Amino acid sequence: MTAERPSLHFHQAPADPADKWEFDDKPREECGVFGVFGSEDASVLTALGLHGLQHRGQEGCGIVSYDGRFHNERYLGLVGEHFAGADMPVRLPGNSAIGHTRYATSGGTILRNVQPLFADLALGGFAIAHNGNLTNARDLRERLVENGSIFQSTSDTECILQLIAKSKKARVVDRFVEALHDIQGAYALVALTDTMMIGARDPIGIRPLVLGDREGAPILASETCALDMIGAKFVRTIEPGEVVVASRGKLGKIEIVSHFPFPRRKARPCIFEFVYFCRPDSVVDERSVYDIRKRMGRRLAEETGVEADVIVPVPDSGVPAAMGFAAASGIPYELGIIRNHYVGRTFIQPKQEIRALGVRLKHSANRDVLKGKRVVLVDDSIVRGTTSRKIVQMVREAGAKEVHFRSASPPIKHPDFYGIDMPAVAELMAAQMTIEEMRKSLGVDSLGFLSVEGLYWAMGENARNAENPQFTDHAFTGDYPTPLLDHSRDQSGRDVQLSLLADKAAE
Amino acid sequence: MTAERPSLHFHQAPADPADKWEFDDKPREECGVFGVFGSEDASVLTALGLHGLQHRGQEGCGIVSYDGRFHNERYLGLVGEHFAGADMPVRLPGNSAIGHTRYATSGGTILRNVQPLFADLALGGFAIAHNGNLTNARDLRERLVENGSIFQSTSDTECILQLIAKSKKARVVDRFVEALHDIQGAYALVALTDTMMIGARDPIGIRPLVLGDREGAPILASETCALDMIGAKFVRTIEPGEVVVASRGKLGKIEIVSHFPFPRRKARPCIFEFVYFCRPDSVVDERSVYDIRKRMGRRLAEETGVEADVIVPVPDSGVPAAMGFAAASGIPYELGIIRNHYVGRTFIQPKQEIRALGVRLKHSANRDVLKGKRVVLVDDSIVRGTTSRKIVQMVREAGAKEVHFRSASPPIKHPDFYGIDMPAVAELMAAQMTIEEMRKSLGVDSLGFLSVEGLYWAMGENARNAENPQFTDHAFTGDYPTPLLDHSRDQSGRDVQLSLLADKAAE
Amino acid sequence: MTAERPSLHFHQAPADPADKWEFDDKPREECGVFGVFGSEDASVLTALGLHGLQHRGQEGCGIVSYDGRFHNERYLGLVGEHFAGADMPVRLPGNSAIGHTRYATSGGTILRNVQPLFADLALGGFAIAHNGNLTNARDLRERLVENGSIFQSTSDTECILQLIAKSKKARVVDRFVEALHDIQGAYALVALTDTMMIGARDPIGIRPLVLGDREGAPILASETCALDMIGAKFVRTIEPGEVVVASRGKLGKIEIVSHFPFPRRKARPCIFEFVYFCRPDSVVDERSVYDIRKRMGRRLAEETGVEADVIVPVPDSGVPAAMGFAAASGIPYELGIIRNHYVGRTFIQPKQEIRALGVRLKHSANRDVLKGKRVVLVDDSIVRGTTSRKIVQMVREAGAKEVHFRSASPPIKHPDFYGIDMPAVAELMAAQMTIEEMRKSLGVDSLGFLSVEGLYWAMGENARNAENPQFTDHAFTGDYPTPLLDHSRDQSGRDVQLSLLADKAAE
Amino acid sequence: MTAERPSLHFHQAPADPADKWEFDDKPREECGVFGVFGSEDASVLTALGLHGLQHRGQEGCGIVSYDGRFHNERYLGLVGEHFAGADMPVRLPGNSAIGHTRYATSGGTILRNVQPLFADLALGGFAIAHNGNLTNARDLRERLVENGSIFQSTSDTECILQLIAKSKKARVVDRFVEALHDIQGAYALVALTDTMMIGARDPIGIRPLVLGDREGAPILASETCALDMIGAKFVRTIEPGEVVVASRGKLGKIEIVSHFPFPRRKARPCIFEFVYFCRPDSVVDERSVYDIRKRMGRRLAEETGVEADVIVPVPDSGVPAAMGFAAASGIPYELGIIRNHYVGRTFIQPKQEIRALGVRLKHSANRDVLKGKRVVLVDDSIVRGTTSRKIVQMVREAGAKEVHFRSASPPIKHPDFYGIDMPAVAELMAAQMTIEEMRKSLGVDSLGFLSVEGLYWAMGENARNAENPQFTDHAFTGDYPTPLLDHSRDQSGRDVQLSLLADKAAE
Repeated sequence: MTAERPSLHFHQAPADPADKWEFDDKPREECGVFGVFGSEDASVLTALGLHGLQHRGQEGCGIVSYDGRFHNERYLGLVGEHFAGADMPVRLPGNSAIGHTRYATSGGTILRNVQPLFADLALGGFAIAHNGNLTNARDLRERLVENGSIFQSTSDTECILQLIAKSKKARVVDRFVEALHDIQGAYALVALTDTMMIGARDPIGIRPLVLGDREGAPILASETCALDMIGAKFVRTIEPGEVVVASRGKLGKIEIVSHFPFPRRKARPCIFEFVYFCRPDSVVDERSVYDIRKRMGRRLAEETGVEADVIVPVPDSGVPAAMGFAAASGIPYELGIIRNHYVGRTFIQPKQEIRALGVRLKHSANRDVLKGKRVVLVDDSIVRGTTSRKIVQMVREAGAKEVHFRSASPPIKHPDFYGIDMPAVAELMAAQMTIEEMRKSLGVDSLGFLSVEGLYWAMGENARNAENPQFTDHAFTGDYPTPLLDHSRDQSGRDVQLSLLADKAAE
Repeated sequence: MTAERPSLHFHQAPADPADKWEFDDKPREECGVFGVFGSEDASVLTALGLHGLQHRGQEGCGIVSYDGRFHNERYLGLVGEHFAGADMPVRLPGNSAIGHTRYATSGGTILRNVQPLFADLALGGFAIAHNGNLTNARDLRERLVENGSIFQSTSDTECILQLIAKSKKARVVDRFVEALHDIQGAYALVALTDTMMIGARDPIGIRPLVLGDREGAPILASETCALDMIGAKFVRTIEPGEVVVASRGKLGKIEIVSHFPFPRRKARPCIFEFVYFCRPDSVVDERSVYDIRKRMGRRLAEETGVEADVIVPVPDSGVPAAMGFAAASGIPYELGIIRNHYVGRTFIQPKQEIRALGVRLKHSANRDVLKGKRVVLVDDSIVRGTTSRKIVQMVREAGAKEVHFRSASPPIKHPDFYGIDMPAVAELMAAQMTIEEMRKSLGVDSLGFLSVEGLYWAMGENARNAENPQFTDHAFTGDYPTPLLDHSRDQSGRDVQLSLLADKAAE
Repeated sequence: MTAERPSLHFHQAPADPADKWEFDDKPREECGVFGVFGSEDASVLTALGLHGLQHRGQEGCGIVSYDGRFHNERYLGLVGEHFAGADMPVRLPGNSAIGHTRYATSGGTILRNVQPLFADLALGGFAIAHNGNLTNARDLRERLVENGSIFQSTSDTECILQLIAKSKKARVVDRFVEALHDIQGAYALVALTDTMMIGARDPIGIRPLVLGDREGAPILASETCALDMIGAKFVRTIEPGEVVVASRGKLGKIEIVSHFPFPRRKARPCIFEFVYFCRPDSVVDERSVYDIRKRMGRRLAEETGVEADVIVPVPDSGVPAAMGFAAASGIPYELGIIRNHYVGRTFIQPKQEIRALGVRLKHSANRDVLKGKRVVLVDDSIVRGTTSRKIVQMVREAGAKEVHFRSASPPIKHPDFYGIDMPAVAELMAAQMTIEEMRKSLGVDSLGFLSVEGLYWAMGENARNAENPQFTDHAFTGDYPTPLLDHSRDQSGRDVQLSLLADKAAE
Repeated sequence: MTAERPSLHFHQAPADPADKWEFDDKPREECGVFGVFGSEDASVLTALGLHGLQHRGQEGCGIVSYDGRFHNERYLGLVGEHFAGADMPVRLPGNSAIGHTRYATSGGTILRNVQPLFADLALGGFAIAHNGNLTNARDLRERLVENGSIFQSTSDTECILQLIAKSKKARVVDRFVEALHDIQGAYALVALTDTMMIGARDPIGIRPLVLGDREGAPILASETCALDMIGAKFVRTIEPGEVVVASRGKLGKIEIVSHFPFPRRKARPCIFEFVYFCRPDSVVDERSVYDIRKRMGRRLAEETGVEADVIVPVPDSGVPAAMGFAAASGIPYELGIIRNHYVGRTFIQPKQEIRALGVRLKHSANRDVLKGKRVVLVDDSIVRGTTSRKIVQMVREAGAKEVHFRSASPPIKHPDFYGIDMPAVAELMAAQMTIEEMRKSLGVDSLGFLSVEGLYWAMGENARNAENPQFTDHAFTGDYPTPLLDHSRDQSGRDVQLSLLADKAAE
């Protein structure tokens, strides 16, 4: 923070980051997007679609609909808490709507950042919802402010809106495309104007976006499971670099037009979508997520097999991989850990002394399954290691004779800049320790990770193409697919956040 | 309702009972109870214990603690929403505390009925928490009101409190026992006075209650999983008809004394606890719940086996039985149905037209697993059949070639009066239809239920003792273990509810 | 408080009582009551009537209506905040209703004590609202609890309800009268059953109660201004010791019957009602309150006249007396102090340092009127003196040359036990100081009080009848009109409060 | 509204505007502003100052403070409800702060419009609070949006902020002055940057602004009563067209510099400030408001005197004029109407039938004073006449023999565009009727208004200078002091409102 810019400041990590991760030591997706054009009850369909994308973000949600005027509601909290009433068609009327669901951070949550963002531009209203992260947002923001733009939020998405507002092109789509040429990073966008719905995916398709159809009305969604939720048919995946526009043609028929404003490049989707984020019943880029995860478990068993009595998943993240591991190894699959589904947003805070006795708010040991057994715990990943360590200790206290830990993805060593919430490098266990050090730290008899090659095999690839990798996999490999402008300007290891005044009252 | 008693009225069923059951067509336990005596931070331990019993009731929760004065907080909602703060030892100070968690009904929920109930009696304060249901509550209430008692709640539990208040015995325990002699039905009670904690279980032990120990402090809880939650040791099950009193002896040492005020009878615990209510990691009356449920699935496969490609559990209730079924049948176990964990207390309400397209808020089909397959769906029970029917339809729409449904418990034909929330007989599918009619109604290729004998086998018994059944199993057999006074007076098939004025503002 | 009754405790004074009184250093009335029988929209009329009695209590309010069932809503806060909607006839339907409004204390406010209280008795539902205070409530409560009654509230009013519940008389009215024979102190009661509305006033009529009529429907209200609010005619004052019952006769016609269960005694209404509590537009016991207050000012001028330039009221309490004072003295009446009407229930808390500079949240000096003048400040009373002292200082800082203070009532030296909220004797300025000490403490050039004889003159009496005083005037004279049983048992100078557990969540 | 701008729409009048005005049929001031620079606890002083300006607006309030970073809180509701805590210096730390309080409209209230507005500009943060109204806001907004500005609010004040953001001047003050050159209408502005506090008043000083001093720290406030509230000294009135800048000089000493960027013009303050808006204890432009209002009453008596028994003010607005009227006429002044102070933001809604009986929620008749009397009612003005008519009817029903109505200001015939909330011309009684028609419509025996000349006399002027009037008095004369650009573009008689999407959730 410099004297000239008193309102800029670094985003603070929570006082004790351990707390944040205690209950869910996983990378987290930032968002899900959804849109529907030309259908009755568009806002109801959008609410249902967002509900189907709820696993992609639980911090906040919003819907914009259009019926000659734009209508907007945004909330902190779950879709079902706010968009559940029979009054939805009255609150958010119209035949087109877009929506957004956003992940839960601790602390910095403010309503102003909840999307869709909306602006009343010279050409009319424009609403936009964004999944992903721009890698040059800070740079863009500073240039825009120099030229007189006033930002309402700290969201990188607002840069896109401000760029569109400044564009001198005559048509909205051309303004939108002009703005895309200025931004870098990962994005799947859904936008709404008074006459069209627009979808766009970044040039290498880091974040997913699919096109569906429900009784002739086009649907855009982050995942296919949102289409299933509303009984829509899957049409196709939006291609990397594609801008797709749905509007009504001369005779009132809905038309869908594709634009490819960038030189065509090979797709490089984020491999995390398959490893963690997508729902197992989604099909992403023609691959069944559930099947991939079982294959990861199967290959993991082959690469890191061990003599044992039971295969126990860390629920729910490790379930499909543990099933695959059990099938490949022939060792019985048992629910040795029970998850408590009633853990909400606030947590009971026992004192340290009580905590040390083995309090487990989210997971409980199924003692009968573990006692005297050689146990293989299977999870999808290890991030900070804090939760894994506690689970291992709980399993040991329940009487396990041996505890082996297996991660169905490779060691995570590098930070993300494309919309995934991960701890800083200094907190990534695999970035700071050798495998043997990790084994000791977790307190297990053996520790194994799926190899990068194994992961690619699970994805159905023969091998990773080192020249031109099929996936965005930098967390495992350090190989970033785009320039990192903001990051290279600021070497703190964590990007700065711009902050407007938070309206404490309203948010 | 008669002219003389204008404030008494029948408890109304919700306008469209289908709505109530759409999302969770299961019998529901009414409550969990917990108590701790003589430990620092008693209220924190109680909050943790109740959190571990949250599956037994999500409607409301309350804690009473004692530190020379009684302190009380009761809420609608989850334990973690209200008893999570670091300020618990200030809000609810003291070395002893009891708590209660209560199930979620739609509509009739009022704060006055949330427990523990408390009264300032002539001998001092008295707090009580109750799991179960009295079968002569209406009769007792009328007699008490005739004699000048003013009721605060519509809860049957208040009868116990009013009886204690009226007792002329000199000692609190004797008053308590005198009250027990007047009540009939099912109860596991935990009570707190200024000098002792009391536990009691009805003469045949219908509802569960266990004794634990945490660093010398006695614990009472509905299930062992609540002991695990706070790192307490399991000591023993409270016996049917036992009244156990924890207090400080002459030298300040905690003493535990047992009373058996009733003639000793053989235990007859409710078999529903094993089939549905208890957490799989609990051990009830020396039996592992998880293991019993897998055995139910195994026996179910033997009794109702069918040729198929995949065994698919209805999550989460059918998971252990499906694992047992798959193991016994050798057919692969697959997660063909994905549960959406973000379904909260309010639900998105699509219009009928949208609903008909196959909207699934709570469950989604994992299409890849089901397509073209012969599928065996395994659930723990069928109650009204509404949810089962929807799931079958969803599985068919996902492309299953055949759908077979298997219930890991026998047909439910008879109502409950001991604290389980079940629909009226007219809504119990198995009470109204033959198996073949049910099969057609559910739209499945075959339908099978576990036999009563099979259920007893899964429980580790050789056979059901018809003279003197080992379990309370009336829902399957019609064999009720106690008189049903209120019910025989009122033949509506559903017991009447007494209602004080609801304070709309406060509750 | 004894060891056996740990839940009884003394009601604590607020930590710094000065804060409590800073903004309103006045005695405060405890309640207003209202009832209507046999009129459409009874709850709407009751809400309006309570709004007209809002000056008698701003802490909480409640309404019970009856339409074949009893309906009840109680709230903390103002009538207009809770009973304002067009949905009132749906929320609280029926042709009869009673209501209550209650004064604002700091701290001990709990919803359980908000009235009307209701109980479901053997003879049917019974609702009751009480203005006044019982002087043997503690004694009664202890006896009732010994005999098995469980109290829901800490209110003395509940004793009446419990006595009625215990009565063995056959008719509700007889039970009610039996209960009245057990209670002592001040009361104006309005009650509602399924067939009648009952009103009652204590044997000497300490608290007021009037009968009105609106299109044939009888109305009961604390003051006539509540009748004006709903366009009802004033019929007569309820007599001391009268029990009046409105019900429907054989042919459905409304009948009003009076009972006089006590030996008839001379009325002795509380003189505070005239001095402070009643609204100036009310007529109490045939006397215009506004006129009495102007007469108090006129006589005050005669008794304590002084040479001055302006007469300035302390708004709003001192306004009529100041007008009378000005008229009698011939000195101009000017608004030298402006009251800020936007002072709500929370107050801005400046630091001591800022406060010392002369911050005035509730009153401001109208400098132009005061500068260089000899000012007579007129208020209706002096209680603790804290506010008076601040106002004097403010007037001096605005440039007044002389400040004379006049109280339009005699010095207050004795506590109240009949429903008026006054500070303890130790905080009553006139109980602790001589007039000269008070003058110095307030910092005024002269100080004068109306004499007791002057007060009686203003009331239209020739003189106070010392044998048999016409009014309850103990605050000035120490002459209490009833025995003080609880008080004589407990010599703390402030009566003990019984406390049930406070449900922190609900209240 | 045109097809291209679907998000622009006209501000709707409430469905039944009568409801809006029932309780307060007065013109209403839009805002109060306050600022303090270089004092400890600046936000506490600002809260106190705003509390003292609460009569200028009760809709919303906000404070921005600066302590190296900007802090902002804005709320709907009263100052004392939101800025009352002892935690203010922590919530809003710093040695400088500005604040705003805003009037209450029904319906269109949204938090986004509550001020101060803030923007993070290229030169640093900038906060601004505005009292007044711009007459070219719509035109400015359209031009700014064309050039890429995105508006956050529908407030005209945001135009000023956007103009500053766009300015290319090097210094903040120069940017501010450049923006002032683009705006037209009425404004008193207080702004805060990281190094200075700025105050500004429009070229003819329509809205008031004064400079005070509290222990060396400069204060800006709409009225002197806000200075009194915090014990600050009045220094001087900010001159029309003056821009005053407080900052720290080289040695850290606070310096105040004045700029006069416009050609100097004669002041023409809004006469409504004296007639209605200012608190009686304020001194505006060297005139005591209380004294002016009494003079208005005195002159009114001379111009419109009538034989009568009592002079009765319509409280509280008519009080000083009624005192003046009584003094001049020698007829006694009596409180014949009592105001109910507990009328809050929601109102009890009696049905039409009940209403017709004479329900009076806000005012009650003091029957004793009115009965059989010839009554002169004195109010400060008549706007729509609805409240006046009800009061007249109430006074008649209380038994008045004659009712004469006197308005202490001339007939209001013309709309306002400078920040006063008045009904449309079609609803202004004096714009639609002759005096005799008004008399009949109000149902009075005689009706009289103060003349324009009389009003100027009360202000201390010899006569109105028709060439160059001393005051902005268009409501009475139709003589507008500035061009009305937006109005002349839109002849609807009521200016259009620009509306962004309302975030229903947040606001």
